[in-house]
Amino acid sequence: MSTPEKITKQSEDFSKWYLDVVRVADLADYGPVKGTMIIKPYGYAIWERMQSIFDARIKAKGISNAYFPMFIPESFLSKEKEHVEGFSPELAVVTHAGGEKLTESVVVRPTSETVMYDAFSRWISSYRDLPYHVNQWCNVVRWEKKTKPFIRTTEFLWQEGHSVLATEKETDELALGRLEEYRTFFEEILCTPMYVGKKSEKEKFAGALYSTACEALLKDGKALQSATSHNLGQNFSKSFNIQFENEKGKREYAWQSSWGMSTRTIGGVILTHGDDKGLVLPPDIAPVQIVVVPIYNKDKGEDKAVMAYITKLTEKMKDLRVKVDSREQYSPGWKFSEWEVKGVPLRLEIGPKEVEDKKVTLVSRVDGGKSSVLLSDLDLNKELEKFKKILLEIAKKFVAENTHEVTSYEGLKNVIEVKKGFALAPWCEDGKCEQKIKDDIMATTRVIPFDQKDTKGEKCVCCGKDAKVWVYFAKAY
Amino acid sequence: MSTPEKITKQSEDFSKWYLDVVRVADLADYGPVKGTMIIKPYGYAIWERMQSIFDARIKAKGISNAYFPMFIPESFLSKEKEHVEGFSPELAVVTHAGGEKLTESVVVRPTSETVMYDAFSRWISSYRDLPYHVNQWCNVVRWEKKTKPFIRTTEFLWQEGHSVLATEKETDELALGRLEEYRTFFEEILCTPMYVGKKSEKEKFAGALYSTACEALLKDGKALQSATSHNLGQNFSKSFNIQFENEKGKREYAWQSSWGMSTRTIGGVILTHGDDKGLVLPPDIAPVQIVVVPIYNKDKGEDKAVMAYITKLTEKMKDLRVKVDSREQYSPGWKFSEWEVKGVPLRLEIGPKEVEDKKVTLVSRVDGGKSSVLLSDLDLNKELEKFKKILLEIAKKFVAENTHEVTSYEGLKNVIEVKKGFALAPWCEDGKCEQKIKDDIMATTRVIPFDQKDTKGEKCVCCGKDAKVWVYFAKAY
Repeated sequence: MSTPEKITKQSEDFSKWYLDVVRVADLADYGPVKGTMIIKPYGYAIWERMQSIFDARIKAKGISNAYFPMFIPESFLSKEKEHVEGFSPELAVVTHAGGEKLTESVVVRPTSETVMYDAFSRWISSYRDLPYHVNQWCNVVRWEKKTKPFIRTTEFLWQEGHSVLATEKETDELALGRLEEYRTFFEEILCTPMYVGKKSEKEKFAGALYSTACEALLKDGKALQSATSHNLGQNFSKSFNIQFENEKGKREYAWQSSWGMSTRTIGGVILTHGDDKGLVLPPDIAPVQIVVVPIYNKDKGEDKAVMAYITKLTEKMKDLRVKVDSREQYSPGWKFSEWEVKGVPLRLEIGPKEVEDKKVTLVSRVDGGKSSVLLSDLDLNKELEKFKKILLEIAKKFVAENTHEVTSYEGLKNVIEVKKGFALAPWCEDGKCEQKIKDDIMATTRVIPFDQKDTKGEKCVCCGKDAKVWVYFAKAY
Repeated sequence: MSTPEKITKQSEDFSKWYLDVVRVADLADYGPVKGTMIIKPYGYAIWERMQSIFDARIKAKGISNAYFPMFIPESFLSKEKEHVEGFSPELAVVTHAGGEKLTESVVVRPTSETVMYDAFSRWISSYRDLPYHVNQWCNVVRWEKKTKPFIRTTEFLWQEGHSVLATEKETDELALGRLEEYRTFFEEILCTPMYVGKKSEKEKFAGALYSTACEALLKDGKALQSATSHNLGQNFSKSFNIQFENEKGKREYAWQSSWGMSTRTIGGVILTHGDDKGLVLPPDIAPVQIVVVPIYNKDKGEDKAVMAYITKLTEKMKDLRVKVDSREQYSPGWKFSEWEVKGVPLRLEIGPKEVEDKKVTLVSRVDGGKSSVLLSDLDLNKELEKFKKILLEIAKKFVAENTHEVTSYEGLKNVIEVKKGFALAPWCEDGKCEQKIKDDIMATTRVIPFDQKDTKGEKCVCCGKDAKVWVYFAKAY
């Protein structure tokens, strides 16, 4: 065949396009148990880059990693009422082990608040132990009915950070600080702009005082919750008895926060930057940043000079992730297509002409821009920076063009069902209106942005009563 | 208190000493479900160092990481007869999920051969796809009756590498190559000598053609299987139908190998190098390589000059993991004890005398050696190298002194029960003798070393029949 397997066009069938990209770019495969996935080496290498960059950022803040058991006694979850109600329908339960029925069933962690906080109650006793932070990279399980690779799988990988603090104020600051950490990570590393704000009561984490989140707008106009940061208040500290003696010798319940980001983020990158040719990867997380494709006629003996030129060239690129695709069974065109599907940011094409002119032909995956560059002028780090800038600009423009302010139900309906994207609308904060909108047009509140416009005189788009906040509505994954 | 919590002496109660070190050095805590453990930040930082070093070594060999689901259909395990027999007694079984009883129960991976090889059968079709290697860092579960932190826990962390090859010869080479990779890692990084060789039929991995292993000798004279590398033959490829078309267009069953190392290795480090003062950490995996303890009389105003001297000194140590312990609520003696328990390789003591003389007082954790070194002569990288060398030498000497060649049952019994350690003995390779020795003196065959002495004229220490091999016997964890 002259090109790798074709992928469906986004405009034809967006959902099929996504699954095609995941398969053809060799990111993932399905696991044997319903809803599970195999993250293949190319997909996992993307996760490893995300992990190492984010991990370094939180370590720089003095946060250490640890590992807590994935098995949690069922009784632990029940200690926090909202928490167990929220997670019960999604639990995987181990009833038998070691050839015997267990006296108490254990659940596989859907998140680790309960198993961690039981330990924190033993570890924390004084104000001197606070603030206490710990992070863990692990697998978690939430038994979902409807799944989609990366976006929603019964088992997924994530980091979950947990902080214990002395006061409400510190916890507010911590929760917002972490959210900002995620937002900058998404923007600087994944070239993805995010709407940030508070979740509604209905959409918050089960057991939290309040939740905050980063929400991405994807190419099909849907929203993707991409990271969350919660102020858990004293809900868990009271259930798990995490108390500390303050400086005056008085015992107080601690304040807590948890914050997380998962392999879903890989799905977000695909759905934010991908196009009809496949994946487009931000350079910092691309397993291959630059692919070099030699072009020569072997019969004319052009191969030696071309390959020698490439060897010399790539020796200077040791600080970058470079792949020289010298496979002889594939044509250059075939290789172009393959590396385009795989989203490699830059391609260098090198043939006899380039060798003669001491040049390279440089092709950018983000806009297809092709240029002929003198070796002496070639600065690939600068080209990758430029790539990131363009990628972010395109994404920002898309978000701006697909966010609409509305003040009527018709306006809201028009955005959700016709225009697609985010609708910023005034809302009374009543859960009934939220539910009605969800039932009616399948849109949910995404975030109540921190930078609130005045709501004076504004009416809820649903019930017409006085609006309390502006909120983003969208269909969401 | 003037010192941190005391730990039991090794000679008093070795098992209690171990648990004390784990607790007082803040390495781990118990999880709420029996047999599970929490790896605390200091313990986890050791694992992260092991991971990053070993991961870089296998990546340098071109092996990529991936992630496979932890849930495996029960029917998958049954496909390989020996495999399911070996692992059945240790499985944790999920029978309910998402609020419903599952139509087929799933097990939590005790190892990933079956779930991976099902995928390999789809991914591999031609000799061009071989050799195929993939590695995964993950959690696994084996429901054990008797557990011990790090050494044996129901859930543990490990890496499992899996290779698919075309021929038996390549698979032999691969399996032995990986074992050598582990051996050098243990020796170069963990300063731990290993006996390497083949496992007996009885002790091999369930489903393997044969297994090889690294065996450490611990301070209580027991053996610890520390990494394994298996030639799986075509056992799994036949069960999971992993076939490839060879260069002649004929379909063949592939050959396979798997190889792994776990968090048990942390237990091995404690039990190999630890002493009555606590942990002794090899520098490459030590979260803190050098602790600096200021010593001053604040009333005499000595603190400023000492701290300034330390700041200047540590600025030159940015490539090392250095901790300046400037806590004022603890005495220098308290700090010495704490960092000794935690196994920090080198300690620098800095007081007014050192400031005046432009010196540091350098104390080594491995031999307690104390020296006064001029700043101008101080080379900490060299000191850490020296530390590693001494640590390895001590461990090698211990292994040599506690390995005894025996040719009689009495001799074997004397080594196992009185002298302790490894007994190298001639053996007929009959499983009945192996079982008798296990029942009688609780020693098992550890490895049949690759460098075999001649067995001509030698008789099995158990039955007296002609010996086929020399094998190491020991009590094992």
